[in-house]
Amino acid sequence: MRKPTKEDRFSFGIWTAGWTGTDPFGTDTRTSLEPWDYAEKFAELGAWGITFHDNDVFPFNATPAEQDRRVGKLVEVCKANDLVIEMVTTNTFSHPIFKDGGLTNNDRSIRRFGLKKILNAVDIAAEVGATTFVMWGGREGAEYDSSKDLSAAFDRYKEGLDTVAGYIKEKGYNLKIGLEPKPNEPRGDIFLPTVGHALGLIAQLEHGDIVGLNPETGHEQMANLNYTHGIAQALNHGKLFHIDLNGQSGIKYDQDKAFGHGDLASAFFTVDLLVNGFPGGGNRYEGPIHFDYKPSRTEGMQGVWDSAAANMEMYLMLAEKAKAFRADPRTQELMEEASILELAVPTMAPGETIEDLRKEADIDPEEVAKREYRFVELYQHAMRHLIG
Amino acid sequence: MRKPTKEDRFSFGIWTAGWTGTDPFGTDTRTSLEPWDYAEKFAELGAWGITFHDNDVFPFNATPAEQDRRVGKLVEVCKANDLVIEMVTTNTFSHPIFKDGGLTNNDRSIRRFGLKKILNAVDIAAEVGATTFVMWGGREGAEYDSSKDLSAAFDRYKEGLDTVAGYIKEKGYNLKIGLEPKPNEPRGDIFLPTVGHALGLIAQLEHGDIVGLNPETGHEQMANLNYTHGIAQALNHGKLFHIDLNGQSGIKYDQDKAFGHGDLASAFFTVDLLVNGFPGGGNRYEGPIHFDYKPSRTEGMQGVWDSAAANMEMYLMLAEKAKAFRADPRTQELMEEASILELAVPTMAPGETIEDLRKEADIDPEEVAKREYRFVELYQHAMRHLIG
Amino acid sequence: MRKPTKEDRFSFGIWTAGWTGTDPFGTDTRTSLEPWDYAEKFAELGAWGITFHDNDVFPFNATPAEQDRRVGKLVEVCKANDLVIEMVTTNTFSHPIFKDGGLTNNDRSIRRFGLKKILNAVDIAAEVGATTFVMWGGREGAEYDSSKDLSAAFDRYKEGLDTVAGYIKEKGYNLKIGLEPKPNEPRGDIFLPTVGHALGLIAQLEHGDIVGLNPETGHEQMANLNYTHGIAQALNHGKLFHIDLNGQSGIKYDQDKAFGHGDLASAFFTVDLLVNGFPGGGNRYEGPIHFDYKPSRTEGMQGVWDSAAANMEMYLMLAEKAKAFRADPRTQELMEEASILELAVPTMAPGETIEDLRKEADIDPEEVAKREYRFVELYQHAMRHLIG
Amino acid sequence: MRKPTKEDRFSFGIWTAGWTGTDPFGTDTRTSLEPWDYAEKFAELGAWGITFHDNDVFPFNATPAEQDRRVGKLVEVCKANDLVIEMVTTNTFSHPIFKDGGLTNNDRSIRRFGLKKILNAVDIAAEVGATTFVMWGGREGAEYDSSKDLSAAFDRYKEGLDTVAGYIKEKGYNLKIGLEPKPNEPRGDIFLPTVGHALGLIAQLEHGDIVGLNPETGHEQMANLNYTHGIAQALNHGKLFHIDLNGQSGIKYDQDKAFGHGDLASAFFTVDLLVNGFPGGGNRYEGPIHFDYKPSRTEGMQGVWDSAAANMEMYLMLAEKAKAFRADPRTQELMEEASILELAVPTMAPGETIEDLRKEADIDPEEVAKREYRFVELYQHAMRHLIG
Repeated sequence: MRKPTKEDRFSFGIWTAGWTGTDPFGTDTRTSLEPWDYAEKFAELGAWGITFHDNDVFPFNATPAEQDRRVGKLVEVCKANDLVIEMVTTNTFSHPIFKDGGLTNNDRSIRRFGLKKILNAVDIAAEVGATTFVMWGGREGAEYDSSKDLSAAFDRYKEGLDTVAGYIKEKGYNLKIGLEPKPNEPRGDIFLPTVGHALGLIAQLEHGDIVGLNPETGHEQMANLNYTHGIAQALNHGKLFHIDLNGQSGIKYDQDKAFGHGDLASAFFTVDLLVNGFPGGGNRYEGPIHFDYKPSRTEGMQGVWDSAAANMEMYLMLAEKAKAFRADPRTQELMEEASILELAVPTMAPGETIEDLRKEADIDPEEVAKREYRFVELYQHAMRHLIG
Repeated sequence: MRKPTKEDRFSFGIWTAGWTGTDPFGTDTRTSLEPWDYAEKFAELGAWGITFHDNDVFPFNATPAEQDRRVGKLVEVCKANDLVIEMVTTNTFSHPIFKDGGLTNNDRSIRRFGLKKILNAVDIAAEVGATTFVMWGGREGAEYDSSKDLSAAFDRYKEGLDTVAGYIKEKGYNLKIGLEPKPNEPRGDIFLPTVGHALGLIAQLEHGDIVGLNPETGHEQMANLNYTHGIAQALNHGKLFHIDLNGQSGIKYDQDKAFGHGDLASAFFTVDLLVNGFPGGGNRYEGPIHFDYKPSRTEGMQGVWDSAAANMEMYLMLAEKAKAFRADPRTQELMEEASILELAVPTMAPGETIEDLRKEADIDPEEVAKREYRFVELYQHAMRHLIG
Repeated sequence: MRKPTKEDRFSFGIWTAGWTGTDPFGTDTRTSLEPWDYAEKFAELGAWGITFHDNDVFPFNATPAEQDRRVGKLVEVCKANDLVIEMVTTNTFSHPIFKDGGLTNNDRSIRRFGLKKILNAVDIAAEVGATTFVMWGGREGAEYDSSKDLSAAFDRYKEGLDTVAGYIKEKGYNLKIGLEPKPNEPRGDIFLPTVGHALGLIAQLEHGDIVGLNPETGHEQMANLNYTHGIAQALNHGKLFHIDLNGQSGIKYDQDKAFGHGDLASAFFTVDLLVNGFPGGGNRYEGPIHFDYKPSRTEGMQGVWDSAAANMEMYLMLAEKAKAFRADPRTQELMEEASILELAVPTMAPGETIEDLRKEADIDPEEVAKREYRFVELYQHAMRHLIG
Repeated sequence: MRKPTKEDRFSFGIWTAGWTGTDPFGTDTRTSLEPWDYAEKFAELGAWGITFHDNDVFPFNATPAEQDRRVGKLVEVCKANDLVIEMVTTNTFSHPIFKDGGLTNNDRSIRRFGLKKILNAVDIAAEVGATTFVMWGGREGAEYDSSKDLSAAFDRYKEGLDTVAGYIKEKGYNLKIGLEPKPNEPRGDIFLPTVGHALGLIAQLEHGDIVGLNPETGHEQMANLNYTHGIAQALNHGKLFHIDLNGQSGIKYDQDKAFGHGDLASAFFTVDLLVNGFPGGGNRYEGPIHFDYKPSRTEGMQGVWDSAAANMEMYLMLAEKAKAFRADPRTQELMEEASILELAVPTMAPGETIEDLRKEADIDPEEVAKREYRFVELYQHAMRHLIG
């Protein structure tokens, strides 16, 4: 398999390799490096970009000067290593002050504190040249059904997002916001649990034009959903602004395994969509290929870099297979047999009225019902390409 | 517990008591009655309304005359029993012709056939005086990731919904459309798997103003989601047009048990929202209390009516408890302690700018982080009301 | 990929291709053939054996003469096609009489009726030369926690199994019983929901020596479990008597897709265990490779046979990859690095006492904790073999 | 509701109230107290007993003298507060040395280290007068299907358990071992994922007579299983040695909410079994009512004690309801109608042979199939008692 190149536009969060292994039942198994050390190593492995939370680079209580100094150092190292800082995000979930959330905390003083922290991170994002600002509201939610005024929570979420988006516009920053849905963990039920819920809320915003999605593979799967379907709907609605690829094995705690190390066939079809687009055309995803994984706690530093590299290698292997699958004339035949391209043809003819439609003679449902689609053979043919 | 009255506005689908017990591993355990027989019995049990799919009343291949005759007979019996027909829906999932869906079938001739069937049901809905037209796209989806042009599928879904909604407007019918999301079953992955995905799609419609949601308890739970959160978001967005209450025990096949016979505490908080509204005000659900359950296959006809009655009795028991819970001064105190009402206060003051916000001195995060919310005690207090 | 041969010992249930498509929301999409017609076609596709439920061959209410005649005809056709009838099972779930189960029905008269039906199928199994008698207690369970005396249910389950196993011994039949666990569907909670629960119950039996497991891929996955772990434990306990391979995409209704059409990577490791055994040796599975899948309802008869063939092709593709993976020296190196073979070395030395163990100087936990396992690299290496 | 008394035999793990709130996405929200401070407070709230992991009382690297001193201090405080130390367990999951498990670590030197740690905790358990020694193998498992010799893992698990059980017998300690199953978290797949898998493994042990189960409510529910069914099977097999009650809301990360704060109706039927036993008699659970919950991270110290008290109050509320439910003559009637007590009657009469059984005339299946069970009405009647 060929090595990753800058053209692949692979990027990694500093916090990925940077995760030191604390989980609900155990302490760190690895020590941490400085953010620029991770960045250098990502560059060495072939990454094109990196991303970070504010507190991946400087501590929660850092002074503005310390923030500047540490962010400056990271920017410098990125430049030296030809790395793009393509996305920045903010951590409003780790510090105990956010135990009931940031933008939707019941406590207004905390909401105001959270908003300022977010705005500060927006300024940093603009300063380092990022084009996406991700917002994961991991603590926006509840364990107990009585603990929130749910409608007020959605109002505050909208207020917060519009304030941030309005600020971006006011400042003329070249930034779009990517919301990252998740159904649960660390809260029992998180607001905006899926791609769909975020799409619904965005449509309610004043500044929704610069607010879209950053869907994560494992998060949608934790809601028992098909990730490829989720990003497809976001694409269809013009809202797939960024992407977080990783691996999850079913409905359980958030595993953040390497991409493809969960539901492999689903990963294949995700890559198929990313590299080949929809069969009948339509919106394409144009952003970076961003991985948001955690090196398993069993791994030492060798394993950390093994797993970082595994994400990119997996993507490249799947991309090659997906291209060959779609280019195969047999695939085209089976897609024809399944009438897949016919789905892009409007159901009503141009100018046709309901009256016209109703005048048309009915098909014979018993006869038409017998038609073959051969979906299984088409899928099996994909499997032949994937593993054959 | 008091008996249901017309003021409770309880309604039932004809297909609920009408389910005769065929499941993937077994045949019917009960015989079926005529639709009007079910209607009469629902009235006797205290229901205010009924609802139906076209093919609950007449066969798939019925002539227009037979359709009229049978619908007419049902309307007559409803009138005689003072029953409202509040909602009508259409079956585009049982007949083999719809094996790959109706509005998003890969086969355009089937999409056209399906659209005509839906429009026919819309006319019936208007004719019988229903105010909601529910659309559950149970067969719109896929088992195999290669079998659909996903973007085209969303385009066709939108085309279909806009055609139907446009027709309703054109005809001047007093009807709103309620979409019913479901994550899977009978398809491996259904399009519009959750309340959120439907909200997102509706925002893309030309005639989205008359398209909203009909969320079903068990369906959202099959996506590992909190039903009360789902209907709360729909309410917040002004889109909770209708409701399907029932019971589901976790993530598995669609159980359609009686309301409250699944996650009981969640049912309590659903009713709490329906009867008390959000703590700080906001949109209220004003529609019927509609039950979409199936009498378990083990039940005979006695059990069918036991379980129909159980839905209403459960709702009334929960409503009484929920009212007492909210009215209790101790509840108010705990809500105060949890700052629940503070969530309705905008985070930014009227006219406040980001500059103003940033000028304000920071709170001390270490100190504020220590605050108590006592969410557990508030929840336990709800439990005292529910079962104490 | 090479064609299946008799040496592969692939077998299929008659009910697999025979499923005509009725599901909870739709009617048949295909017509049914005679059992011998399916058998012939399976032979043509390369199968070595077939299996059946009593009522796949003759109706529930068939007379003994009709049973004989139809079973005889099937046996004849199998002989003519060089097909082994390797397993027989009984249907105690479809007929309404079994709506509350067979062996654990609350109604003793039904338990007695069920037992006779099972014994009748045992005689047929022996007569046709099957060596495994599978028992799937799909209706043994409950939707409602109050509806069963649970301890009595386990007592009756044990009584039933011991009666059947005792009868097999008494008759001198060359048959072993394979229990098939499933967590739910068609009942809300099925008794013996997983491989583990069956292993636990078998250990309580008088005739447990001839009772083992027939685990199905999708069933264990519906309980959120790793199928390969499940069959490994059954193997370790000497209880993997038979196997049901198929495909399931996460926790939802029982999909019965073709093998490998669900969690592909998990299917790979299942095949790895079946063809390569445990790394350090131990019990091997010696039975047939039996597929228990359903051709998706969207498929016509072409699709039925496409999907039957897909199971075998998938197995062969995975087997080839798994053999190459294990034979690769790089795999061996990584397994060494992960200390995988060291797990087969007893923790205590031969003859070592606890006193001896305690005398040994402690390792330095901080130092040893740093060791690398490189599990991710080993897994990625498996992926390179699978899709590279 | 009455206050808890010593007769209720409520006990708590020191680690429950002692959890300070670190989760995968956030740091501590509370400071920790000394173990004896928690014990005193539990006594004050009405608890009868406490339990602990070795490292809840002394640090991982404590000298024997420090261990003695701190355990001695705890014992003293327990005596002064009339608290029983009913169970002790060991922590082989938090320290990084156990990142791949203790008894089933691929690294033999770590298995030996782990075994010594466990044996040390056994001595402490005996010394403080505990009667149960719980073993939760939370790190025994894998994220990656290639990383273990699964059969060797089961062999090592058995070796480890037999070594510990053999040591207990050799020493003459009055201790039984309670295994605690869990399907996942912190490992991707944990060995012994459910009650069933543990029952199966125990049956393979040499010293299995003193090894049984300590099932936790939420753990079984994370495997999509019915907890009451699980403890019923353990009871039926004589293996319910201890119990961990708590609350979980569906399949997600391990929530450890207070008992009853998850699936409330299921909690009711668990308590029904614990206080009323099986309808037809059989084994009863005689151990302590042990709670293994975590005060939610949003809570301060007031909330910690609110939630500790909530467990006991919930149990008492449910116990009162359950007793009234079973004592109600209407319940008895409905149980009769459902033939629940008939399930305790053997299917075969005493001395009856299969020949005898077969001679009996068949019932008419079509007729018998029609019988009512009225399971829904019985369940609804339970709900009337629970919330009516």
